[in-house]
Amino acid sequence: MKNKSVILLSGGMDSLVCAGLALKESDETYFLHVNYGQKTSLKEQECFKKICEYYKIPFSHQKIIDGTFLSQIGGSSLTDEKLEIKDYKGVEKNIPNTYVPFRNSIILSIAVSWAEVIGANTLYIGANYEDSPGYPDCRPSYYEAFNQVIKEGTKEGNIKIITPIIMMKKKDIVLSGEKLKVPFNLSWSCYRNIEKACGKCDSCALRLRGFSEANIKDPISYEVG
Amino acid sequence: MKNKSVILLSGGMDSLVCAGLALKESDETYFLHVNYGQKTSLKEQECFKKICEYYKIPFSHQKIIDGTFLSQIGGSSLTDEKLEIKDYKGVEKNIPNTYVPFRNSIILSIAVSWAEVIGANTLYIGANYEDSPGYPDCRPSYYEAFNQVIKEGTKEGNIKIITPIIMMKKKDIVLSGEKLKVPFNLSWSCYRNIEKACGKCDSCALRLRGFSEANIKDPISYEVG
Repeated sequence: MKNKSVILLSGGMDSLVCAGLALKESDETYFLHVNYGQKTSLKEQECFKKICEYYKIPFSHQKIIDGTFLSQIGGSSLTDEKLEIKDYKGVEKNIPNTYVPFRNSIILSIAVSWAEVIGANTLYIGANYEDSPGYPDCRPSYYEAFNQVIKEGTKEGNIKIITPIIMMKKKDIVLSGEKLKVPFNLSWSCYRNIEKACGKCDSCALRLRGFSEANIKDPISYEVG
Repeated sequence: MKNKSVILLSGGMDSLVCAGLALKESDETYFLHVNYGQKTSLKEQECFKKICEYYKIPFSHQKIIDGTFLSQIGGSSLTDEKLEIKDYKGVEKNIPNTYVPFRNSIILSIAVSWAEVIGANTLYIGANYEDSPGYPDCRPSYYEAFNQVIKEGTKEGNIKIITPIIMMKKKDIVLSGEKLKVPFNLSWSCYRNIEKACGKCDSCALRLRGFSEANIKDPISYEVG
C-alpha cells in the first residue's frame, strides 16, 4: 500500500527531524503547520515555508492553519503576554507554564481531518517524551489513546499517528537529523520572540545540550553561549 | 465537589436539550460555540447568543471560537459550496455527505482546552447516536475513547465528557426538552442557509418526526409542511 502522510511541522528541531524520517518512509507527503497564536508564530511560519521549499514540497501539499483561538483561551506562557517564559533550571517534574492546555489534541484533530479528506493513512508528529516529561500530551500512552479515537471517530478508521522520535534523547535526535541531512539552519526552537535564539529558555537549553552531546555545531545563531 | 461545566451549544435542538439537562446538573456553566464555517454559521451563532441570553449566562461565561479553517479543509456538504445538501431519504447506512471529517474531535479538543484553563470538570455535548448512526463521531465508543485521551493528555486528567442524549430517540429529546422548558423557538436545526427551515434535509426531517411523535408542535417556521 502507498504510504501517504500528513507531517506536522512546527519549524522546531524535533518536528524537522521527524519530517526527515517521515519523508524517507512515505510515498507522498503533505505538510501542515498550525499557528496557535504563540509569541514566535511568525518566525515558525517562516521556518515552515523555508523547510517546505528546501524539500521541494508543492504548494498544494502545504497548509498553514489559523488556530489563533488558542491564544484567546490562554493558560500558557507561550500564548499569554502576561505570563513570563522562564529560563531553564533543569528538567522539571511539574508541568511547566509553557504547557498549552490540550494543544496537541487540537493540532492532531486538525491534522486527522485533513488526512481524512485527502486520504492519507499516516500522520507524523515530532513529540518527544524523553526530554520533556512534564508535558502530559507528549506521553506515549496519550498517542495510543488518540489512535483509538481515530479508529472510532473517522470514516475508515485507518489513519495512524506515528511518533518516531518520542523516546529519543535530544542527542540522538541531532545525530539522526545529521544523518538525514535535515536543514537545521532553517529551524527555530526558542520560546522567545527575539532576533537570535535566547539560548536560555527550556527549549534552547535542551537543543544546545543535544548538539553539544552529539558533538555537532548548531548552525543557528544565539544571543549567548 | 462543585460541578463546573463547559456546555457545547451549536444552536440546534439536540445541543439545546443537552444544555437544559446540563444546567440542571451543574453549579456553574460556561457556554461554548464553535463556528466551523458551515453554511448556516451566522444563523447558529444568533441562536447561541439568544439561548445564552434566555438562560442569563454572563458574557464572561460565553465563548464563540473561530474554527473556520474547517471549511478550508473541506470534505463536507455542510462547509463546501460545491457539495449539495440532499433531501432526507430515510436513515442512511452509509456516512452521509454532511459528515464533517473529524469535526467533533476538533470541537471537543477546543472545549477541553477551555475547561482546563477555567478548571471545569465536566463537558457536555449533545451528540446523538440513536437517530444518526451514520456519523462515526457520534458513537458512544468514540466518546469513551476520547475520555481516555483527556485522562492521558491533560494536567489533572479529571475532565469528563457527558453525552446525556446520545441514546435517546428524537421523540424523547423533544419530550425531555419540553419538560425542561427549553426555548425550542430559539433553536435552528436546518442544514440549509435559508430564511425559514427547509423541512426536507436530514436534520429537519428528524426534528419534525421527533416533534410529531411527541405530539408537540415545533414552534419554529418551515418552508413546507
